Amino acid sequence: MTLPLNDITRRDNTLALLRSLRTHGPTARVDLGAMNGISSATVTSITADLLKQELIVELPHDAHRNGGRGRPKTLIELNRDAACVICVKLSINEVQIVVGDFSGHIRHSAHFTLTTQSLTPAQLSDFLETRISEVHATMKASWQRVAGICLAVQGVVSPVNGTIIWSPALGFRNASFADHLADVFNCPVLLENDANCIARILAEQPEYSSYPNLVVIMLGYGIGMSVLIDGKPFLGSQGSAAEFGHSKYEPGGALCACGRRGCIEAYTSDYALYREARSMLALPAGDSAHPSHDQMQTLTQLALQGDPVARQIYDKAGRALGFGIANVLALFNPDLVLITGSGVRGYDAMRPSLERALREALVDELIGASQLATCPWERDMTCLGGIAMTLQAIEPDLLVTPP
Amino acid sequence: MTLPLNDITRRDNTLALLRSLRTHGPTARVDLGAMNGISSATVTSITADLLKQELIVELPHDAHRNGGRGRPKTLIELNRDAACVICVKLSINEVQIVVGDFSGHIRHSAHFTLTTQSLTPAQLSDFLETRISEVHATMKASWQRVAGICLAVQGVVSPVNGTIIWSPALGFRNASFADHLADVFNCPVLLENDANCIARILAEQPEYSSYPNLVVIMLGYGIGMSVLIDGKPFLGSQGSAAEFGHSKYEPGGALCACGRRGCIEAYTSDYALYREARSMLALPAGDSAHPSHDQMQTLTQLALQGDPVARQIYDKAGRALGFGIANVLALFNPDLVLITGSGVRGYDAMRPSLERALREALVDELIGASQLATCPWERDMTCLGGIAMTLQAIEPDLLVTPP
Repeated sequence: MTLPLNDITRRDNTLALLRSLRTHGPTARVDLGAMNGISSATVTSITADLLKQELIVELPHDAHRNGGRGRPKTLIELNRDAACVICVKLSINEVQIVVGDFSGHIRHSAHFTLTTQSLTPAQLSDFLETRISEVHATMKASWQRVAGICLAVQGVVSPVNGTIIWSPALGFRNASFADHLADVFNCPVLLENDANCIARILAEQPEYSSYPNLVVIMLGYGIGMSVLIDGKPFLGSQGSAAEFGHSKYEPGGALCACGRRGCIEAYTSDYALYREARSMLALPAGDSAHPSHDQMQTLTQLALQGDPVARQIYDKAGRALGFGIANVLALFNPDLVLITGSGVRGYDAMRPSLERALREALVDELIGASQLATCPWERDMTCLGGIAMTLQAIEPDLLVTPP
Repeated sequence: MTLPLNDITRRDNTLALLRSLRTHGPTARVDLGAMNGISSATVTSITADLLKQELIVELPHDAHRNGGRGRPKTLIELNRDAACVICVKLSINEVQIVVGDFSGHIRHSAHFTLTTQSLTPAQLSDFLETRISEVHATMKASWQRVAGICLAVQGVVSPVNGTIIWSPALGFRNASFADHLADVFNCPVLLENDANCIARILAEQPEYSSYPNLVVIMLGYGIGMSVLIDGKPFLGSQGSAAEFGHSKYEPGGALCACGRRGCIEAYTSDYALYREARSMLALPAGDSAHPSHDQMQTLTQLALQGDPVARQIYDKAGRALGFGIANVLALFNPDLVLITGSGVRGYDAMRPSLERALREALVDELIGASQLATCPWERDMTCLGGIAMTLQAIEPDLLVTPP
């Protein structure tokens, strides 16, 4: 530690205030102080610094009268234009590139369709560099610099080494991208698992922020999971913890995209549901290996309307998911298991068998007080989480160090 | 926080020195400073205080000459007689009561055999109170007071509430004991899971201390687990995390002591192995529900000597354990999985099928760098861990607060 203790405390307090503004939006100084246990003198002094550094702005008075009562308090908010970050979401056959401003809002978004699984590491690297450069150039008018980049990747990544260990979107394994992009764009580059990005955004929402031990399960083409312990993503020793999709439902069971058998994913993912259905039911045409939203929507509707084949498929999927969640409860004893992802569309069709499986698998004492809930899926959630994680990572570098 | 910052730092440094002495035994002041990044002036001042409070002693010079070279350094060590703690280990049909001194060594141990499963909460409470009182009276000659008590219980406990949620040793559930004992004996009472006690002791041993994410699996009458994340036991939201024994091998499989089917314990525990064997093989006589050490030893020997029935039983147990460990690797990505407990006697008979199952279940990327090892079982390990946890908990109270 090179800073004297007082400077470290002031820095921590400054970061805490920025974080409160990011979570709560426009806030009065007195409330910022109360939220963070910081004296009003200190809040005044820190916000003066932040105003000087153009990291925050004061809101004009007339925009926020206290319902007309009392003297209006001056609210402050983050200066949206203080910095921007780029989030690149990599999933099967799709890359989304998003620009987030300093308050975490999306200011630009672009989707690219490409056959991700046939890319070599060099081709992916070139693609990312080109696309990020384009966005970078477009954004230059509004922001002086891109303060950070996040790669949000479906699959197993090592955030520490910046290495994609294994992704269902890619045909190769163990490739490093973060260091190269950091060199090219001269800014920090975070590599994150997509489920951890989503968990980050959900954990900040008021309805979930009181659950320190939160498990987020993402249903979709694959099955992802993020485990937050005391609010922080649990990564394990190399970053491959929480690989729920490849925990087992039954030894020697259905074939999984990973090449092994009996994984939860091999029953509950879009490809698993569609694989069972395609020879039996009339579904919209499409790429058989990667079922489309329309195909999955049709299949889900059939199950919900009582089609016996579709119901059987979702019953089995729910049973596998229920046994998988039983293991998660026994091993993690979370406050809440939150199910989301595009596949949450099929949750109601899985729910009866899922709940039966959970009771069949676990005694009441091990289900304990853990709750199970779903959360509607929004396509931009991954990128919003990646932006939030990047902003938090780069924030200390944006602060002017005390002289 | 009521103490000024400097006092808090001094207190933390004092506790760090005590902990180093506990782990390393007799140590020179200069080495204590180096281990903890504390200046020699501070070490000298703190050790002077600790000598005055009789929590440490200096070793006579002649006991520790540096192989004859140089001027001998004065070593200091914990004053063993500064305080004692009592650890009560509760397992099926057996209660062990142990007294540990201030350096963590066992100074007294007694075993009691009783039919634990037929006890009411009141009977167990009376039993504990009586037995602890006896030990307490015996110890009074050597120690002025018992500084703390640990109940180390097989099963699911809530350390925070002091409640035994569910133990295979007991016929009742959700009963509180810690508060009552704390009132009777006027000292802090910790309630801990037995596997967490063992993990605590193992994690301090030099060969395992470099693994921050350590999973300890205890094989025996039941199957226990402790997960250390960054060196600390992971408890989950109510204390029932790491219930590995009741994670699943196969839905609808073998009947488990918990009343559900397909749990890892229902294949790999002593009772599961013995249940399969008892109608097929000639084994020493005994209580059929609770196989004895002799019975299990005979069964293991049969398997290791190639008896086809016994081998088949251990093959299946190893396969279930392998699939269970695969889930642990996928979900926790630990540095090391360490297998111990009395049932480790049968590990070599399970090992081939366990290793096959692990490879069958998981792709290499998810096995990653996680290692698997066994550790010989010692009967006192649980109590040693309970004593260490209790000493750490009570230590701050033993220090004389700065005036």
